[in-house]
Amino acid sequence: MRKKIAVLGAGMVGRAIALDLTGAYEVYSFDIDDQALSQLRERNREIRVQQADLREASVLKNLIAPFDLVVSAVPGYMGWQTINTVIRSGKDLVDISFLPEDVLPLDTLAREHGVTVIMDCGVAPGLPNIIAGNYAARGRVKRFEYMVGGLPFIRTKPFEYKAPFSPCDVIEEYTRPARMVENGVIVTKPAMSDTELIDFPQVGTLEAFNSDGLRSLLYTLPDIPDMKEKTLRYPGHIDAIKLLRDAGFFSKEALDVGGRQVIPFDVTSRILFDAWKLGPEEREFTIMRIILEMQEGEGSRRLTWDLFDTYDAVTGISSMARTTGYTCTAAVNMVMQGLFTEKGLFPPEKIALQEEQFSFIMQYLHDRGITLDRYSE
Amino acid sequence: MRKKIAVLGAGMVGRAIALDLTGAYEVYSFDIDDQALSQLRERNREIRVQQADLREASVLKNLIAPFDLVVSAVPGYMGWQTINTVIRSGKDLVDISFLPEDVLPLDTLAREHGVTVIMDCGVAPGLPNIIAGNYAARGRVKRFEYMVGGLPFIRTKPFEYKAPFSPCDVIEEYTRPARMVENGVIVTKPAMSDTELIDFPQVGTLEAFNSDGLRSLLYTLPDIPDMKEKTLRYPGHIDAIKLLRDAGFFSKEALDVGGRQVIPFDVTSRILFDAWKLGPEEREFTIMRIILEMQEGEGSRRLTWDLFDTYDAVTGISSMARTTGYTCTAAVNMVMQGLFTEKGLFPPEKIALQEEQFSFIMQYLHDRGITLDRYSE
Repeated sequence: MRKKIAVLGAGMVGRAIALDLTGAYEVYSFDIDDQALSQLRERNREIRVQQADLREASVLKNLIAPFDLVVSAVPGYMGWQTINTVIRSGKDLVDISFLPEDVLPLDTLAREHGVTVIMDCGVAPGLPNIIAGNYAARGRVKRFEYMVGGLPFIRTKPFEYKAPFSPCDVIEEYTRPARMVENGVIVTKPAMSDTELIDFPQVGTLEAFNSDGLRSLLYTLPDIPDMKEKTLRYPGHIDAIKLLRDAGFFSKEALDVGGRQVIPFDVTSRILFDAWKLGPEEREFTIMRIILEMQEGEGSRRLTWDLFDTYDAVTGISSMARTTGYTCTAAVNMVMQGLFTEKGLFPPEKIALQEEQFSFIMQYLHDRGITLDRYSE
Repeated sequence: MRKKIAVLGAGMVGRAIALDLTGAYEVYSFDIDDQALSQLRERNREIRVQQADLREASVLKNLIAPFDLVVSAVPGYMGWQTINTVIRSGKDLVDISFLPEDVLPLDTLAREHGVTVIMDCGVAPGLPNIIAGNYAARGRVKRFEYMVGGLPFIRTKPFEYKAPFSPCDVIEEYTRPARMVENGVIVTKPAMSDTELIDFPQVGTLEAFNSDGLRSLLYTLPDIPDMKEKTLRYPGHIDAIKLLRDAGFFSKEALDVGGRQVIPFDVTSRILFDAWKLGPEEREFTIMRIILEMQEGEGSRRLTWDLFDTYDAVTGISSMARTTGYTCTAAVNMVMQGLFTEKGLFPPEKIALQEEQFSFIMQYLHDRGITLDRYSE
């Protein structure tokens, strides 16, 4: 009998995950949105779907009871309660909900319940963590950094951007000061600082800026003295964002507008929701460059991984869903096939310390057309 | 006995007008805002002030009954009703309320009541109209154009702008398609089109773009085949405005924001109100270039007037208030001294056709430190 997997959330990424896992496993998809579920059923009749309000802990607990493993692809704001409920239900979990809270303290709870929880296991956070963790286990990593972006091919002014997730989450990311590691110390730089232009052969010149995406890496790999993340956008995008910020459009303090209290941030999010809406078949790509400097004798060797992935017109699955979803399903398969058996809560940098685990993930992605080109200097 | 003048509105410009007229005339200032009135009283105890809601036609009618002439410096939205009430009360009027409505049809009403009404008599509209009208009366004007801006000396990103009046009026001006005259025909160009950089010796490079400020000139001087107005801002300002427009921040269609209907334009106006607030003693300037091409024999002669005026630190009166207010008071004095006696409604291009009138205005401004440098090619 096939093992059973519950996929929570049937959004863009949740659907890609369910489709990828079905066949090898018996897959159930849960979401509050009936339409998302029927879209999924149309794509593959083997997937069982059920409409459910996953915000209700008791509902969730009952739903997942019969399953061998749970994938959480719920929106970030639902992530924390979902993880807690899944752990307390004694279920293994792979999570890509990108929740804002610090989850590392849940490690103890996960151990107590004897479950395996893998966090933040998408394209970023996710893939760069896996590489950093693996190389840190092999030798001395002197520097680790990556830059990543998901962008539409069709560039439309003024933002030249489409958000695969909610604009308010994007704005939160933009406006949060960026934490990074310099000389072994966590430092904070202003949001959107250190902009630089970088040429990519596949898409031309992009603009990189500091973003606060290292998350668990700030704490889990203390031997790497320099680490940073940058986000990639088309040149000019971030100036437009800074303009809105500087003019006050991201303010969370209520203003009196004709006698009513209005929060600019809420209105701006709503306006950008329309401006940044990614069409269902809109061609987009994911681009990422990961740079790692290894100590070698007295000197060092620089390794670079380049990832470039595009919307799949045949399956209609966005590159964002592909790269995030298949990193997640690679981890799911590692757990299901007994390649990763530890109990506790693990960020991605802790799941592929062994070469067998690392190459499993890279091969898994490669089989789905996602290739990280590695070169060294 | 001195003649009596009522100044409606004690805003920045209204106060400058009252101060300038007092002494030669007995001046009364009316406003709903007690604070603005006491500020004015502190400056000159000779001015009588009275708090009043000028939006009430009956109140207004009673207030102005004892006066020889009325100056309207009320906000634009109150302009139309104010003019109507003043005309029907049989009072002469000089108006700088910059109301949005087309007032030329009120000419008949003004004649019927035997009053003199001078409209739009500020720095722009106002001064350029006076020059165009005077030269069109002397000969054949082949081309008339002007560019004008009021700007702060201290340039702060992202807008490098401070609005001496309400941001919603500024946005309305920016976003309205610009009407101009080309080859004798009124044509409409997109809002903020035809941007060009122009160097000014006093303030460096500014950016000019088409704006919809010709107003009455579109109709009153049909013999000038080419006319246009451009607005001046620091370079980059108008790109920031276009960004907001293109992203949807000026939309007047209500959006659902968390269950409430919110109009982006209203919120944006409110945000910009803070961002664009001109400090009470903030140094600003008015810059204007007026170009007029006269037919001369087979060829033509190009005349240019340059105006550059700055905040007066001694009196604390802004350049905007100076240039607008003193053009207005020049017209008031023309009427009071019998230099302009026609009955009806007149845009500024109709008030200084005679050389005596024209030089009266130029001298009046010059006496107050506002000089238009004229040169010809």
